[in-house]
Amino acid sequence: MAKMKAASGFRDFLPDACRKRADLMRRIKATYEAFGYEPIETPALENLAVFLGKGGGENEKLMYKLLKRGEKLQRALETGVKEENDLADAGLRFDLTVPLARFFAEHRAELPTPFKRYHIGPVWRAERAQHGRFREFIQCDVDAIGSGSMMVESDVLLATATALSELGFSGLEVKLNSRALLHLLVGAAGVAEAQRGETITALDKLEKIGADGVRGELAQRGVPGEAAARLLEFYAASRASAGLNLLDETGRNIAAWSGASAEAELAGLREVLELTPDLPSGKLVFDPFLARGLDYYTGPVFEVAAEGVPFSLAGGGRYDEMVGNFTGQPTPACGFSIGFERICTVMDERGMFGAGARAADVLVAALDDARPVERAAIELGQALRKAGLRADVFPGQAKPARLYELAEKKGIPILAQLGGRELQDGAVQVRDLKTRQSAQVPRDAVAAHVRKILDPAG
Amino acid sequence: MAKMKAASGFRDFLPDACRKRADLMRRIKATYEAFGYEPIETPALENLAVFLGKGGGENEKLMYKLLKRGEKLQRALETGVKEENDLADAGLRFDLTVPLARFFAEHRAELPTPFKRYHIGPVWRAERAQHGRFREFIQCDVDAIGSGSMMVESDVLLATATALSELGFSGLEVKLNSRALLHLLVGAAGVAEAQRGETITALDKLEKIGADGVRGELAQRGVPGEAAARLLEFYAASRASAGLNLLDETGRNIAAWSGASAEAELAGLREVLELTPDLPSGKLVFDPFLARGLDYYTGPVFEVAAEGVPFSLAGGGRYDEMVGNFTGQPTPACGFSIGFERICTVMDERGMFGAGARAADVLVAALDDARPVERAAIELGQALRKAGLRADVFPGQAKPARLYELAEKKGIPILAQLGGRELQDGAVQVRDLKTRQSAQVPRDAVAAHVRKILDPAG
Repeated sequence: MAKMKAASGFRDFLPDACRKRADLMRRIKATYEAFGYEPIETPALENLAVFLGKGGGENEKLMYKLLKRGEKLQRALETGVKEENDLADAGLRFDLTVPLARFFAEHRAELPTPFKRYHIGPVWRAERAQHGRFREFIQCDVDAIGSGSMMVESDVLLATATALSELGFSGLEVKLNSRALLHLLVGAAGVAEAQRGETITALDKLEKIGADGVRGELAQRGVPGEAAARLLEFYAASRASAGLNLLDETGRNIAAWSGASAEAELAGLREVLELTPDLPSGKLVFDPFLARGLDYYTGPVFEVAAEGVPFSLAGGGRYDEMVGNFTGQPTPACGFSIGFERICTVMDERGMFGAGARAADVLVAALDDARPVERAAIELGQALRKAGLRADVFPGQAKPARLYELAEKKGIPILAQLGGRELQDGAVQVRDLKTRQSAQVPRDAVAAHVRKILDPAG
Repeated sequence: MAKMKAASGFRDFLPDACRKRADLMRRIKATYEAFGYEPIETPALENLAVFLGKGGGENEKLMYKLLKRGEKLQRALETGVKEENDLADAGLRFDLTVPLARFFAEHRAELPTPFKRYHIGPVWRAERAQHGRFREFIQCDVDAIGSGSMMVESDVLLATATALSELGFSGLEVKLNSRALLHLLVGAAGVAEAQRGETITALDKLEKIGADGVRGELAQRGVPGEAAARLLEFYAASRASAGLNLLDETGRNIAAWSGASAEAELAGLREVLELTPDLPSGKLVFDPFLARGLDYYTGPVFEVAAEGVPFSLAGGGRYDEMVGNFTGQPTPACGFSIGFERICTVMDERGMFGAGARAADVLVAALDDARPVERAAIELGQALRKAGLRADVFPGQAKPARLYELAEKKGIPILAQLGGRELQDGAVQVRDLKTRQSAQVPRDAVAAHVRKILDPAG
């Protein structure tokens, strides 16, 4: 019966988790909508050609593929299977960015320019199963397509910082850099072209393995000691600075080390820093060592950290080339992805979701199985709903202990019961399950009585 | 480039459609939650063993299967592929009922009894592509597991009728029957056991092909003329009656035709009719000829029609055996499925979604590309949001015509612009795009001015 469980790496969500996830989605949506981003939906699966070689990088290798069907499958098997893709014609999306590019190309005549959209939905990756890695997870993306203005960078990062702030995160730090600048910096320090990528990867581990660890790795890879020393020294100095000053200093270092001008790379970042007003609950900082993994970024990149959270909450950047793969013409784009699953976990662990939701305000139960009594219970439920309350009607009969257990499991604070006698008297027994006090209440007064228990001050 | 479109039979949703679909989901959820149903989520895919032979019937054949990966795929190809399932180890869900049964079995220790859940989510079926048939569509299910009481039937049908009524449908007719009763009726009329299934299928076409058409089909299949005449006569008579009277008449007919007692089959249906109070915007009727397609139903079945809608809006029934396939013990269950996609289409066609939503309340734009002006535009957007408005900031510069077009495409009714002069004067040009009236408004007063335009009476 092991196969009768959810597939390995996949999760079920019970009601409490579902309510929290829905609440998180609703709040993120509200912020992005306040910035004029609009919702779209794309299918879970796309033709394989959409995904292949479109900048998905490592994620492309983790794609789930859909088996061909019927005659197409027969033909493939008969002609001989040379590679996996002979057997599949579609794949489950592994991110929301490639589908966005395909969507934009297909519908651009109908879309406003710039097209600002958010998309919150599941993606699938055949990750090696390990703690905290899931094969189906929610991505939450916000992107603007069609404008090269740095006001877009400012807009997406302001929107994202506002969303995180509204969720209750504080001490936000939005880090800004560009891949081109980082490559220029590393090169200017004296790292040969072929080693720049691995040098950046090594530097990115500095907080984990320390300066000596990084120095060792760089030496091993043949990076000249002087280059390593320059980079490590500047790295340490850069932690104490942040904004336009650090930007200028980066430019001066590059000039001093190599005589090159970094002005082209610095201009866009300077513009973002100058354009962006104060963030809610945090600040925008320039970090010349910020490296973002995805290959498709072409300009500024960002990452958001929050005080006391040991991983980044969101990341993004400008990718002016990927959408053009689908539209056939230059199409600038810039976006952010919020780490929905991580944020959900952190918020849950830290009690940031507020009080537990209840499945209903009141549990209605019949005290005996006479049909008029059962019908009266159903009618009472309906009457309470008409009065704006959420009423759960218990089907059949049960001992009090079982009803209490049910109410507790569903977080329902009040029990309303009636039997033949109550029916005759036009009354209902209402029990406050917290105080354990019961009262005989006239039927017409039950809704008001329930409200009073729910909100004594109301 | 044809492959660069959404896969055949799959749909993209643009912002306006997304907002309508989200609105529909929100309203359905609100009603089900008012009845104490709780949300759950299950993965998009399940191990194949979960789906195979679990009562999915025809839908099981339409399942999309996920190609095995890496070594597992290699092994399968090397040992020789005998059947499709040698290449696949998981499938996309084709309904929400089989996953619910698996979910319930896996988590039952943590779940309340009865477990009342709703689930609104996509399912996938490799349907032959044709008009109005999609391969990815939303199902919207509400089910209660763990109680055999007919109060459950009453609860699910009341909840579903209330949901449809809240959406704006009127003249609702919830039809009630049971498969056992229909089989008994057809048998009592004189149809041999082997022909009962096809007789029921033929009768179900009566409204499409007429009494003569059905009579011809039945004769062709060898159904005795007397049996056909009895059924067709009673069918005609049953259209004029509905509730407990028709129930009694059905029992009398069965007794008169065959001497058999239908009391066991009638009792449950009578109970549902007697338990259920008046429905909002409609009525509950007994229909002895209602046939529901799915094989897994074991008791009462339902279907909901609305005035002027040429197809059913929802259907459901009791299925006391399917969940037991997963739990290993008898587990009663009963539920309803709302036709989300059909309802969405009808509501859209009939303008039942209310006025078109707007992507934002106001579009903010800079009148020139001086950095302080662009920053002031971004800051104005943020100030308007702090005042509770939704503000979309245009990145870069654009001619008025382009801004008007953007505002129109996004349904934004107001344009707020500032340039160097406005910045100096602490003012903003606010334009009502409907009346085409512009006003120079002090910066502090922009939010109030925008509100006044949005709601002149407010």
